[in-house]
Amino acid sequence: MRVSVPATSANMGPGFDTLGIALKMKNQVVIKPSKFHSVSLKGEGSNNPALKDNNMFISIFNDFYHNLSTKRRNFRFEFFNEVPMSRGLGSSSAVIVSAIASAYAIEGIDLPKKKLLNLALAYENHPDNITPAVMGGFNVATVQDNEVKFIKKDMPKYLKAIVVIPNRPISTHMSRKTLPYKYSKDDAVYNLSHSSLLTAAFMTENWEMLRVASLDKFHQKYRMKQMPELFEVQKASLKAGSLMSTLSGSGSTFFSIAHADDAKRIEKELRVKFPHFRVFITDFDNYGARVDK
Amino acid sequence: MRVSVPATSANMGPGFDTLGIALKMKNQVVIKPSKFHSVSLKGEGSNNPALKDNNMFISIFNDFYHNLSTKRRNFRFEFFNEVPMSRGLGSSSAVIVSAIASAYAIEGIDLPKKKLLNLALAYENHPDNITPAVMGGFNVATVQDNEVKFIKKDMPKYLKAIVVIPNRPISTHMSRKTLPYKYSKDDAVYNLSHSSLLTAAFMTENWEMLRVASLDKFHQKYRMKQMPELFEVQKASLKAGSLMSTLSGSGSTFFSIAHADDAKRIEKELRVKFPHFRVFITDFDNYGARVDK
Repeated sequence: MRVSVPATSANMGPGFDTLGIALKMKNQVVIKPSKFHSVSLKGEGSNNPALKDNNMFISIFNDFYHNLSTKRRNFRFEFFNEVPMSRGLGSSSAVIVSAIASAYAIEGIDLPKKKLLNLALAYENHPDNITPAVMGGFNVATVQDNEVKFIKKDMPKYLKAIVVIPNRPISTHMSRKTLPYKYSKDDAVYNLSHSSLLTAAFMTENWEMLRVASLDKFHQKYRMKQMPELFEVQKASLKAGSLMSTLSGSGSTFFSIAHADDAKRIEKELRVKFPHFRVFITDFDNYGARVDK
Repeated sequence: MRVSVPATSANMGPGFDTLGIALKMKNQVVIKPSKFHSVSLKGEGSNNPALKDNNMFISIFNDFYHNLSTKRRNFRFEFFNEVPMSRGLGSSSAVIVSAIASAYAIEGIDLPKKKLLNLALAYENHPDNITPAVMGGFNVATVQDNEVKFIKKDMPKYLKAIVVIPNRPISTHMSRKTLPYKYSKDDAVYNLSHSSLLTAAFMTENWEMLRVASLDKFHQKYRMKQMPELFEVQKASLKAGSLMSTLSGSGSTFFSIAHADDAKRIEKELRVKFPHFRVFITDFDNYGARVDK
Protein backbone atom coordinates (compact mmCIF):
# COMPACT_ATOMS: atom_id res chain seq x y z
CA MET A 1 0.00 0.00 0.00
CA ARG A 2 1.30 3.42 -0.97
CA VAL A 3 0.22 6.84 0.30
CA SER A 4 1.51 10.13 -1.08
CA VAL A 5 0.83 13.71 0.00
CA PRO A 6 2.06 16.86 -1.78
CA ALA A 7 4.12 19.78 -0.52
CA THR A 8 2.12 22.94 0.10
CA SER A 9 2.80 26.66 0.21
CA ALA A 10 0.61 28.54 2.69
CA ASN A 11 -0.30 32.19 3.35
CA MET A 12 0.55 33.26 -0.21
CA GLY A 13 1.19 36.82 0.97
CA PRO A 14 -1.92 38.30 2.58
CA GLY A 15 -3.85 35.06 3.14
CA PHE A 16 -2.53 34.46 6.65
CA ASP A 17 -3.67 31.03 7.96
CA THR A 18 -6.20 30.96 5.10
CA LEU A 19 -4.74 30.45 1.60
CA GLY A 20 -2.61 27.54 0.43
CA ILE A 21 -1.62 25.70 -2.74
CA ALA A 22 -0.29 22.20 -3.49
CA LEU A 23 2.96 21.56 -5.39
CA LYS A 24 4.06 18.55 -7.41
CA MET A 25 6.65 17.47 -4.83
CA LYS A 26 5.50 14.75 -2.51
CA ASN A 27 6.22 12.62 0.51
CA GLN A 28 5.45 8.99 -0.16
CA VAL A 29 5.26 6.03 2.16
CA VAL A 30 4.96 2.37 1.22
CA ILE A 31 3.61 0.21 4.05
CA LYS A 32 3.81 -3.58 4.10
CA PRO A 33 2.80 -6.04 6.80
CA SER A 34 5.97 -7.47 8.27
CA LYS A 35 7.14 -9.76 11.08
CA PHE A 36 8.97 -6.91 12.73
CA HIS A 37 8.48 -3.18 12.84
CA SER A 38 11.01 -1.49 10.59
CA VAL A 39 11.55 1.87 8.99
CA SER A 40 13.54 3.01 5.98
CA LEU A 41 13.89 6.59 4.94
CA LYS A 42 15.08 8.00 1.62
CA GLY A 43 15.25 11.59 0.43
CA GLU A 44 14.63 14.57 2.72
CA GLY A 45 15.49 13.77 6.36
CA SER A 46 17.44 10.61 5.52
CA ASN A 47 20.63 12.17 6.89
CA ASN A 48 18.94 12.38 10.31
CA PRO A 49 18.88 8.81 11.72
CA ALA A 50 16.87 9.94 14.77
CA LEU A 51 13.86 10.33 12.47
CA LYS A 52 13.66 6.54 12.14
CA ASP A 53 12.96 6.10 15.83
CA ASN A 54 11.32 9.34 16.82
CA ASN A 55 8.99 9.62 13.92
CA MET A 56 5.83 11.77 13.96
CA PHE A 57 4.35 9.69 11.17
CA ILE A 58 4.58 6.42 13.14
CA SER A 59 3.21 8.05 16.26
CA ILE A 60 0.10 9.47 14.51
CA PHE A 61 -0.33 6.29 12.45
CA ASN A 62 -0.35 4.25 15.68
CA ASP A 63 -2.91 6.57 17.32
CA PHE A 64 -5.36 5.83 14.52
CA TYR A 65 -4.37 2.26 13.79
CA HIS A 66 -4.84 1.16 17.41
CA ASN A 67 -8.25 2.78 17.39
CA LEU A 68 -9.35 1.24 14.12
CA SER A 69 -7.93 -2.26 14.51
CA THR A 70 -8.05 -4.92 17.20
CA LYS A 71 -5.19 -6.74 15.45
CA ARG A 72 -1.65 -5.93 16.44
CA ARG A 73 0.22 -6.36 13.17
CA ASN A 74 3.72 -5.10 12.52
CA PHE A 75 4.66 -3.13 9.42
CA ARG A 76 7.60 -2.10 7.34
CA PHE A 77 7.46 1.63 6.54
CA GLU A 78 9.41 2.87 3.53
CA PHE A 79 9.50 6.62 3.29
CA PHE A 80 10.46 8.51 0.14
CA ASN A 81 10.45 12.19 1.03
CA GLU A 82 10.71 15.02 -1.44
CA VAL A 83 9.39 17.75 0.89
CA PRO A 84 12.22 19.50 2.74
CA MET A 85 11.71 19.78 6.49
CA SER A 86 11.38 23.11 8.32
CA ARG A 87 11.39 25.17 5.17
CA GLY A 88 7.73 26.28 5.04
CA LEU A 89 6.64 23.71 2.44
CA GLY A 90 4.13 21.88 4.60
CA SER A 91 6.25 18.87 5.57
CA SER A 92 4.42 18.50 8.93
CA SER A 93 1.04 18.63 7.18
CA ALA A 94 2.23 16.01 4.69
CA VAL A 95 3.26 13.74 7.58
CA ILE A 96 -0.01 14.25 9.51
CA VAL A 97 -2.21 13.69 6.45
CA SER A 98 -0.28 10.67 5.18
CA ALA A 99 -0.21 9.01 8.63
CA ILE A 100 -3.99 9.30 9.06
CA ALA A 101 -4.71 8.21 5.48
CA SER A 102 -2.34 5.23 5.91
CA ALA A 103 -3.98 3.98 9.11
CA TYR A 104 -7.40 3.89 7.43
CA ALA A 105 -6.06 2.44 4.17
CA ILE A 106 -4.15 -0.39 5.86
CA GLU A 107 -7.40 -1.42 7.56
CA GLY A 108 -9.26 -1.20 4.23
CA ILE A 109 -11.57 1.53 5.53
CA ASP A 110 -12.64 4.10 2.99
CA LEU A 111 -11.87 7.58 4.28
CA PRO A 112 -13.56 10.47 2.42
CA LYS A 113 -11.21 13.39 1.85
CA LYS A 114 -13.33 15.80 3.87
CA LYS A 115 -13.13 13.49 6.87
CA LEU A 116 -9.37 13.08 6.42
CA LEU A 117 -9.09 16.87 6.40
CA ASN A 118 -11.08 17.30 9.62
CA LEU A 119 -9.08 14.54 11.36
CA ALA A 120 -5.85 16.28 10.36
CA LEU A 121 -7.16 19.51 11.90
CA ALA A 122 -6.74 17.97 15.36
CA TYR A 123 -2.96 17.94 14.74
CA GLU A 124 -2.62 21.30 13.03
CA ASN A 125 -4.63 24.33 14.15
CA HIS A 126 -4.59 26.16 10.85
CA PRO A 127 -6.21 24.87 7.68
CA ASP A 128 -3.90 26.57 5.19
CA ASN A 129 -1.45 23.69 4.66
CA ILE A 130 -3.60 20.64 5.41
CA THR A 131 -6.37 21.69 2.99
CA PRO A 132 -4.24 21.75 -0.17
CA ALA A 133 -2.28 18.72 1.15
CA VAL A 134 -5.53 16.72 1.20
CA MET A 135 -7.42 18.30 -1.72
CA GLY A 136 -4.69 19.56 -4.07
CA GLY A 137 -4.98 22.83 -5.98
CA PHE A 138 -5.43 26.35 -4.62
CA ASN A 139 -7.61 26.53 -1.51
CA VAL A 140 -9.23 29.16 0.65
CA ALA A 141 -10.15 27.80 4.07
CA THR A 142 -11.45 28.72 7.48
CA VAL A 143 -12.36 26.67 10.54
CA GLN A 144 -15.90 26.67 11.93
CA ASP A 145 -17.00 24.36 14.78
CA ASN A 146 -13.92 22.15 14.38
CA GLU A 147 -14.53 21.67 10.69
CA VAL A 148 -12.56 23.03 7.78
CA LYS A 149 -14.77 25.00 5.39
CA PHE A 150 -12.95 25.46 2.12
CA ILE A 151 -13.30 26.15 -1.59
CA LYS A 152 -10.80 24.64 -4.04
CA LYS A 153 -9.65 25.72 -7.49
CA ASP A 154 -7.62 23.54 -9.85
CA MET A 155 -4.48 25.19 -11.15
CA PRO A 156 -3.90 25.31 -14.92
CA LYS A 157 -0.86 23.58 -16.48
CA TYR A 158 0.38 26.79 -18.10
CA LEU A 159 1.39 28.21 -14.72
CA LYS A 160 4.44 26.99 -12.83
CA ALA A 161 5.82 27.47 -9.34
CA ILE A 162 9.40 28.62 -8.86
CA VAL A 163 10.68 27.57 -5.47
CA VAL A 164 13.73 29.05 -3.74
CA ILE A 165 14.80 26.97 -0.75
CA PRO A 166 17.42 28.62 1.46
CA ASN A 167 20.23 26.61 3.02
CA ARG A 168 18.86 27.15 6.53
CA PRO A 169 15.46 27.35 8.23
CA ILE A 170 13.57 30.17 9.93
CA SER A 171 12.16 28.65 13.10
CA THR A 172 8.34 28.64 12.90
CA HIS A 173 8.20 29.20 16.63
CA MET A 174 10.63 32.13 16.57
CA SER A 175 8.94 33.33 13.42
CA ARG A 176 5.50 33.46 15.08
CA LYS A 177 6.99 35.22 18.09
CA THR A 178 8.17 38.11 15.95
CA LEU A 179 4.62 38.80 14.74
CA PRO A 180 2.40 41.51 16.25
CA TYR A 181 -0.31 40.44 18.70
CA LYS A 182 -2.67 43.08 17.37
CA TYR A 183 -3.17 44.78 14.07
CA SER A 184 -4.34 48.32 13.40
CA LYS A 185 -7.67 48.58 11.62
CA ASP A 186 -5.83 49.83 8.54
CA ASP A 187 -3.51 46.84 8.41
CA ALA A 188 -6.35 44.42 9.18
CA VAL A 189 -8.41 45.82 6.30
CA TYR A 190 -5.33 45.89 4.06
CA ASN A 191 -4.76 42.16 4.41
CA LEU A 192 -8.46 41.31 4.40
CA SER A 193 -9.00 43.16 1.10
CA HIS A 194 -5.83 41.81 -0.51
CA SER A 195 -6.53 38.22 0.54
CA SER A 196 -10.08 38.52 -0.80
CA LEU A 197 -8.87 40.02 -4.07
CA LEU A 198 -6.16 37.33 -4.38
CA THR A 199 -8.85 34.67 -3.87
CA ALA A 200 -10.99 36.23 -6.59
CA ALA A 201 -7.96 36.40 -8.90
CA PHE A 202 -7.36 32.64 -8.53
CA MET A 203 -11.03 31.73 -8.86
CA THR A 204 -11.46 33.79 -12.03
CA GLU A 205 -7.94 33.10 -13.43
CA ASN A 206 -7.22 36.83 -13.49
CA TRP A 207 -3.47 36.28 -13.20
CA GLU A 208 -2.49 39.88 -13.93
CA MET A 209 -4.11 40.80 -10.61
CA LEU A 210 -1.78 38.56 -8.56
CA ARG A 211 1.02 41.09 -8.18
CA VAL A 212 -1.11 43.71 -6.43
CA ALA A 213 -3.38 41.24 -4.67
CA SER A 214 -0.48 39.28 -3.12
CA LEU A 215 0.80 42.21 -1.06
CA ASP A 216 0.83 41.66 2.72
CA LYS A 217 1.30 43.63 5.92
CA PHE A 218 0.70 40.88 8.50
CA HIS A 219 3.75 38.67 8.57
CA GLN A 220 6.25 38.66 5.70
CA LYS A 221 8.37 41.68 6.64
CA TYR A 222 8.64 40.52 10.26
CA ARG A 223 9.73 37.03 9.29
CA MET A 224 11.95 38.04 6.39
CA LYS A 225 13.98 40.31 8.67
CA GLN A 226 15.45 37.11 10.11
CA MET A 227 16.89 36.32 6.66
CA PRO A 228 17.24 39.63 4.83
CA GLU A 229 18.37 37.96 1.58
CA LEU A 230 14.72 37.00 1.16
CA PHE A 231 13.83 40.62 0.33
CA GLU A 232 16.33 40.31 -2.52
CA VAL A 233 14.85 36.99 -3.63
CA GLN A 234 11.38 38.55 -3.80
CA LYS A 235 12.61 41.61 -5.67
CA ALA A 236 14.61 39.57 -8.16
CA SER A 237 11.77 37.13 -8.79
CA LEU A 238 9.22 39.88 -9.48
CA LYS A 239 11.72 41.80 -11.61
CA ALA A 240 12.39 38.66 -13.67
CA GLY A 241 8.67 38.36 -14.42
CA SER A 242 6.95 36.36 -11.68
CA LEU A 243 3.24 37.02 -11.32
CA MET A 244 3.60 36.91 -7.53
CA SER A 245 6.37 36.07 -5.08
CA THR A 246 5.68 35.37 -1.41
CA LEU A 247 7.17 33.75 1.66
CA SER A 248 6.08 30.11 1.76
CA GLY A 249 4.33 29.51 5.08
CA SER A 250 6.58 30.92 7.78
CA GLY A 251 9.64 30.48 5.52
CA SER A 252 12.38 30.15 4.78
CA THR A 253 11.32 29.04 1.27
CA PHE A 254 10.22 31.65 -1.21
CA PHE A 255 7.40 30.76 -3.58
CA SER A 256 6.71 32.41 -6.93
CA ILE A 257 4.17 31.81 -9.69
CA ALA A 258 4.90 32.49 -13.34
CA HIS A 259 3.69 31.66 -16.82
CA ALA A 260 5.48 28.54 -18.11
CA ASP A 261 7.21 30.65 -20.80
CA ASP A 262 8.80 32.88 -18.17
CA ALA A 263 9.62 30.27 -15.54
CA LYS A 264 12.95 29.06 -16.97
CA ARG A 265 14.33 32.56 -17.24
CA ILE A 266 13.24 33.38 -13.71
CA GLU A 267 14.75 30.13 -12.40
CA LYS A 268 18.02 30.89 -14.15
CA GLU A 269 18.26 34.43 -12.82
CA LEU A 270 17.50 33.32 -9.28
CA ARG A 271 20.10 30.53 -9.52
CA VAL A 272 22.76 32.97 -10.63
CA LYS A 273 21.89 35.48 -7.90
CA PHE A 274 21.46 32.96 -5.07
CA PRO A 275 23.92 30.14 -5.78
CA HIS A 276 23.79 28.90 -2.17
CA PHE A 277 19.99 28.35 -2.31
CA ARG A 278 18.15 25.52 -4.13
CA VAL A 279 16.10 26.96 -6.98
CA PHE A 280 13.78 24.93 -9.16
CA ILE A 281 10.55 24.93 -11.16
CA THR A 282 7.68 22.65 -10.22
CA ASP A 283 4.11 22.07 -11.39
CA PHE A 284 1.06 22.46 -9.20
CA ASP A 285 -0.64 19.36 -7.85
CA ASN A 286 -4.43 19.24 -8.28
CA TYR A 287 -5.02 15.84 -6.71
CA GLY A 288 -3.79 16.08 -3.13
CA ALA A 289 -3.48 13.04 -0.88
CA ARG A 290 -3.44 9.80 -2.84
CA VAL A 291 -3.85 6.21 -1.63
CA ASP A 292 -2.85 3.29 -3.89
CA LYS A 293 -3.86 -0.04 -2.49
CA MET B 1 -29.57 63.14 -20.92
CA ARG B 2 -30.23 60.58 -18.23
CA VAL B 3 -27.78 59.03 -15.73
CA SER B 4 -28.68 56.27 -13.30
CA VAL B 5 -26.65 54.59 -10.57
CA PRO B 6 -27.75 51.62 -8.45
CA ALA B 7 -28.00 51.21 -4.69
CA THR B 8 -25.24 49.10 -3.15
CA SER B 9 -24.76 46.98 -0.07
CA ALA B 10 -21.20 47.01 1.28
CA ASN B 11 -19.17 44.94 3.76
CA MET B 12 -21.44 41.90 3.35
CA GLY B 13 -20.43 40.65 6.79
CA PRO B 14 -16.68 40.04 7.00
CA GLY B 15 -15.62 42.02 3.91
CA PHE B 16 -15.06 45.29 5.72
CA ASP B 17 -14.34 48.15 3.24
CA THR B 18 -13.80 45.46 0.57
CA LEU B 19 -16.93 43.63 -0.61
CA GLY B 20 -20.02 45.18 -2.15
CA ILE B 21 -22.95 44.32 -4.39
CA ALA B 22 -25.33 46.36 -6.56
CA LEU B 23 -29.13 46.23 -6.20
CA LYS B 24 -31.86 46.98 -8.73
CA MET B 25 -32.92 50.21 -7.01
CA LYS B 26 -31.50 53.33 -8.52
CA ASN B 27 -31.03 57.05 -8.32
CA GLN B 28 -31.71 58.70 -11.65
CA VAL B 29 -31.11 62.21 -12.88
CA VAL B 30 -32.30 63.78 -16.09
CA ILE B 31 -30.31 66.88 -17.09
CA LYS B 32 -31.41 69.36 -19.70
CA PRO B 33 -29.84 72.65 -20.81
CA SER B 34 -32.04 75.45 -19.53
CA LYS B 35 -32.12 79.24 -19.32
CA PHE B 36 -32.01 79.11 -15.55
CA HIS B 37 -30.58 76.69 -13.05
CA SER B 38 -33.38 74.62 -11.53
CA VAL B 39 -33.76 71.43 -9.52
CA SER B 40 -36.66 69.05 -9.03
CA LEU B 41 -36.54 66.08 -6.70
CA LYS B 42 -38.87 63.08 -6.55
CA GLY B 43 -38.72 60.00 -4.39
CA GLU B 44 -36.23 59.60 -1.54
CA GLY B 45 -35.23 62.94 -0.03
CA SER B 46 -38.10 64.87 -1.69
CA ASN B 47 -39.56 65.71 1.73
CA ASN B 48 -36.36 67.60 2.52
CA PRO B 49 -36.52 70.89 0.54
CA ALA B 50 -33.01 71.89 1.68
CA LEU B 51 -31.64 69.20 -0.64
CA LYS B 52 -32.64 71.30 -3.61
CA ASP B 53 -30.27 74.10 -2.63
CA ASN B 54 -27.54 72.34 -0.72
CA ASN B 55 -27.09 69.41 -3.01
CA MET B 56 -23.94 67.24 -3.07
CA PHE B 57 -24.73 66.17 -6.63
CA ILE B 58 -24.75 69.75 -7.97
CA SER B 59 -21.59 70.62 -6.09
CA ILE B 60 -19.61 67.63 -7.49
CA PHE B 61 -21.16 68.07 -10.93
CA ASN B 62 -19.99 71.70 -10.97
CA ASP B 63 -16.46 70.74 -9.88
CA PHE B 64 -16.13 68.55 -12.95
CA TYR B 65 -18.22 70.58 -15.36
CA HIS B 66 -16.23 73.74 -14.78
CA ASN B 67 -13.06 71.84 -15.37
CA LEU B 68 -14.27 70.16 -18.55
CA SER B 69 -16.13 73.02 -20.15
CA THR B 70 -15.34 76.64 -20.96
CA LYS B 71 -19.03 77.29 -21.57
CA ARG B 72 -21.19 78.42 -18.70
CA ARG B 73 -24.51 76.79 -19.49
CA ASN B 74 -27.38 76.43 -17.05
CA PHE B 75 -29.22 73.17 -16.52
CA ARG B 76 -32.43 71.77 -15.20
CA PHE B 77 -31.76 68.76 -12.94
CA GLU B 78 -34.61 66.31 -12.36
CA PHE B 79 -33.83 63.75 -9.70
CA PHE B 80 -35.77 60.50 -9.25
CA ASN B 81 -34.34 58.81 -6.20
CA GLU B 82 -35.08 55.26 -5.11
CA VAL B 83 -32.09 54.88 -2.78
CA PRO B 84 -32.98 55.85 0.80
CA MET B 85 -30.54 58.24 2.41
CA SER B 86 -28.46 57.39 5.49
CA ARG B 87 -29.55 53.76 5.56
CA GLY B 88 -26.37 52.02 4.40
CA LEU B 89 -27.49 51.49 0.81
CA GLY B 90 -24.81 53.58 -0.86
CA SER B 91 -26.81 56.74 -1.49
CA SER B 92 -23.69 58.93 -1.20
CA SER B 93 -21.81 56.73 -3.64
CA ALA B 94 -24.74 56.90 -6.04
CA VAL B 95 -24.67 60.70 -5.86
CA ILE B 96 -20.88 60.93 -6.33
CA VAL B 97 -20.82 58.51 -9.25
CA SER B 98 -23.84 60.01 -11.02
CA ALA B 99 -22.54 63.57 -10.61
CA ILE B 100 -19.16 62.73 -12.18
CA ALA B 101 -20.72 60.65 -14.96
CA SER B 102 -23.20 63.47 -15.69
CA ALA B 103 -20.53 66.16 -16.01
CA TYR B 104 -18.65 64.12 -18.61
CA ALA B 105 -21.80 63.04 -20.44
CA ILE B 106 -23.21 66.57 -20.73
CA GLU B 107 -19.97 67.61 -22.41
CA GLY B 108 -20.13 64.58 -24.73
CA ILE B 109 -16.86 63.19 -23.37
CA ASP B 110 -16.64 59.41 -23.20
CA LEU B 111 -15.68 58.31 -19.69
CA PRO B 112 -14.53 54.68 -19.32
CA LYS B 113 -15.98 53.02 -16.22
CA LYS B 114 -12.56 52.40 -14.67
CA LYS B 115 -11.77 56.10 -14.90
CA LEU B 116 -15.17 57.00 -13.44
CA LEU B 117 -14.42 54.64 -10.54
CA ASN B 118 -11.02 56.19 -9.83
CA LEU B 119 -12.46 59.72 -10.00
CA ALA B 120 -15.16 58.72 -7.50
CA LEU B 121 -12.46 57.44 -5.15
CA ALA B 122 -11.39 61.04 -4.48
CA TYR B 123 -14.79 61.62 -2.82
CA GLU B 124 -15.10 58.32 -0.99
CA ASN B 125 -12.09 56.68 0.67
CA HIS B 126 -13.36 53.11 0.53
CA PRO B 127 -14.02 51.23 -2.68
CA ASP B 128 -16.76 48.91 -1.37
CA ASN B 129 -19.78 51.03 -2.41
CA ILE B 130 -18.43 52.95 -5.40
CA THR B 131 -17.15 49.81 -7.18
CA PRO B 132 -20.52 48.03 -7.46
CA ALA B 133 -22.21 51.43 -8.02
CA VAL B 134 -20.07 51.89 -11.14
CA MET B 135 -19.63 48.28 -12.30
CA GLY B 136 -22.75 46.49 -11.02
CA GLY B 137 -22.66 42.93 -9.68
CA PHE B 138 -20.66 41.55 -6.75
CA ASN B 139 -17.24 43.14 -6.35
CA VAL B 140 -14.11 42.60 -4.31
CA ALA B 141 -11.93 45.70 -4.24
CA THR B 142 -8.86 47.24 -2.70
CA VAL B 143 -7.06 50.54 -3.27
CA GLN B 144 -3.46 50.64 -4.50
CA ASP B 145 -1.69 53.89 -5.45
CA ASN B 146 -4.99 55.80 -5.63
CA GLU B 147 -6.52 53.26 -7.99
CA VAL B 148 -9.28 50.80 -7.27
CA LYS B 149 -8.22 47.24 -8.05
CA PHE B 150 -11.27 45.05 -8.27
CA ILE B 151 -12.76 41.84 -9.63
CA LYS B 152 -16.44 41.69 -10.51
CA LYS B 153 -18.88 38.78 -10.70
CA ASP B 154 -22.33 38.99 -12.30
CA MET B 155 -25.14 37.81 -10.05
CA PRO B 156 -27.54 35.16 -11.37
CA LYS B 157 -31.26 35.90 -11.76
CA TYR B 158 -32.29 33.02 -9.51
CA LEU B 159 -30.96 34.84 -6.44
CA LYS B 160 -32.79 37.77 -4.87
CA ALA B 161 -31.97 40.35 -2.23
CA ILE B 162 -34.33 40.90 0.69
CA VAL B 163 -33.88 44.36 2.11
CA VAL B 164 -35.08 45.46 5.57
CA ILE B 165 -34.95 49.23 5.97
CA PRO B 166 -35.50 50.47 9.53
CA ASN B 167 -37.50 53.59 10.24
CA ARG B 168 -34.42 55.44 11.50
CA PRO B 169 -30.70 55.66 10.63
CA ILE B 170 -27.54 54.62 12.45
CA SER B 171 -25.16 57.53 12.01
CA THR B 172 -22.15 56.40 9.93
CA HIS B 173 -19.95 58.68 11.94
CA MET B 174 -21.20 57.40 15.31
CA SER B 175 -21.14 53.93 13.91
CA ARG B 176 -17.46 54.14 12.95
CA LYS B 177 -16.64 55.61 16.36
CA THR B 178 -17.96 52.52 18.12
CA LEU B 179 -15.53 50.27 16.24
CA PRO B 180 -12.24 49.06 17.75
CA TYR B 181 -9.05 50.84 16.64
CA LYS B 182 -7.13 47.56 16.74
CA TYR B 183 -8.00 43.93 16.22
CA SER B 184 -6.47 40.89 17.88
CA LYS B 185 -4.61 38.57 15.54
CA ASP B 186 -7.40 36.00 16.00
CA ASP B 187 -10.13 38.44 14.98
CA ALA B 188 -8.04 39.79 12.11
CA VAL B 189 -7.50 36.28 10.75
CA TYR B 190 -11.16 35.41 11.38
CA ASN B 191 -12.42 38.20 9.13
CA LEU B 192 -9.63 37.76 6.60
CA SER B 193 -10.43 34.06 6.17
CA HIS B 194 -14.20 34.57 6.10
CA SER B 195 -14.01 37.44 3.62
CA SER B 196 -11.74 35.35 1.38
CA LEU B 197 -14.05 32.34 1.62
CA LEU B 198 -17.08 34.53 0.93
CA THR B 199 -15.34 35.91 -2.16
CA ALA B 200 -14.61 32.38 -3.37
CA ALA B 201 -18.23 31.38 -2.72
CA PHE B 202 -19.51 34.20 -4.96
CA MET B 203 -16.93 33.61 -7.68
CA THR B 204 -17.69 29.87 -7.84
CA GLU B 205 -21.45 30.22 -7.14
CA ASN B 206 -21.11 27.98 -4.10
CA TRP B 207 -24.15 29.52 -2.41
CA GLU B 208 -24.38 26.95 0.38
CA MET B 209 -21.10 28.35 1.70
CA LEU B 210 -22.52 31.86 2.22
CA ARG B 211 -23.94 31.25 5.66
CA VAL B 212 -20.62 30.30 7.26
CA ALA B 213 -18.51 32.55 5.08
CA SER B 214 -20.56 35.68 5.87
CA LEU B 215 -19.75 35.65 9.60
CA ASP B 216 -17.96 38.73 10.90
CA LYS B 217 -16.16 39.93 14.04
CA PHE B 218 -15.05 43.39 12.89
CA HIS B 219 -18.06 45.65 12.91
CA GLN B 220 -21.59 44.21 12.91
CA LYS B 221 -22.03 43.52 16.63
CA TYR B 222 -20.68 46.97 17.56
CA ARG B 223 -22.98 48.77 15.15
CA MET B 224 -26.03 46.60 15.72
CA LYS B 225 -25.91 47.35 19.47
CA GLN B 226 -27.18 50.81 18.53
CA MET B 227 -30.35 49.19 17.16
CA PRO B 228 -30.73 45.83 18.92
CA GLU B 229 -33.77 44.81 16.84
CA LEU B 230 -31.28 44.19 14.05
CA PHE B 231 -30.05 41.04 15.84
CA GLU B 232 -33.65 39.81 15.63
CA VAL B 233 -33.88 40.74 11.94
CA GLN B 234 -30.74 38.73 11.19
CA LYS B 235 -31.90 35.73 13.20
CA ALA B 236 -35.37 35.75 11.65
CA SER B 237 -34.01 36.12 8.12
CA LEU B 238 -31.60 33.20 8.46
CA LYS B 239 -34.24 31.08 10.18
CA ALA B 240 -36.66 31.78 7.34
CA GLY B 241 -34.12 30.46 4.84
CA SER B 242 -31.80 33.28 3.75
CA LEU B 243 -28.43 32.15 2.46
CA MET B 244 -26.79 35.06 4.27
CA SER B 245 -27.97 38.09 6.22
CA THR B 246 -25.68 41.02 7.02
CA LEU B 247 -25.73 44.66 8.00
CA SER B 248 -25.72 46.78 4.85
CA GLY B 249 -22.73 49.10 5.00
CA SER B 250 -22.80 50.74 8.41
CA GLY B 251 -26.58 50.17 8.67
CA SER B 252 -29.26 50.58 9.51
CA THR B 253 -30.53 48.46 6.56
CA PHE B 254 -30.24 44.71 6.77
CA PHE B 255 -29.41 42.84 3.58
CA SER B 256 -30.15 39.17 2.90
CA ILE B 257 -29.68 36.90 -0.10
CA ALA B 258 -32.00 33.99 -0.88
CA HIS B 259 -33.07 31.70 -3.67
CA ALA B 260 -36.00 33.23 -5.60
CA ASP B 261 -38.22 30.36 -4.39
CA ASP B 262 -37.60 31.29 -0.76
CA ALA B 263 -37.57 35.06 -1.05
CA LYS B 264 -41.34 35.65 -0.84
CA ARG B 265 -41.70 33.57 2.29
CA ILE B 266 -38.75 35.34 3.92
CA GLU B 267 -40.13 38.74 2.94
CA LYS B 268 -43.52 37.84 4.41
CA GLU B 269 -42.11 36.60 7.71
CA LEU B 270 -39.93 39.69 8.10
CA ARG B 271 -42.90 41.97 7.33
CA VAL B 272 -44.99 40.30 9.98
CA LYS B 273 -42.20 40.45 12.58
CA PHE B 274 -41.04 43.99 11.80
CA PRO B 275 -44.15 45.91 10.74
CA HIS B 276 -42.50 49.29 11.40
CA PHE B 277 -39.63 48.56 8.95
CA ARG B 278 -39.81 48.57 5.14
CA VAL B 279 -39.25 45.06 3.83
CA PHE B 280 -39.02 44.18 0.14
CA ILE B 281 -37.44 41.89 -2.43
CA THR B 282 -35.20 43.27 -5.15
CA ASP B 283 -33.05 41.86 -7.95
CA PHE B 284 -29.34 42.40 -8.27
CA ASP B 285 -28.06 44.91 -10.78
CA ASN B 286 -25.24 43.70 -13.04
CA TYR B 287 -24.81 46.85 -15.12
CA GLY B 288 -23.90 49.62 -12.67
CA ALA B 289 -23.77 53.26 -13.69
CA ARG B 290 -25.66 53.93 -16.91
CA VAL B 291 -25.64 56.99 -19.18
CA ASP B 292 -28.38 57.46 -21.79
CA LYS B 293 -27.73 60.36 -24.12
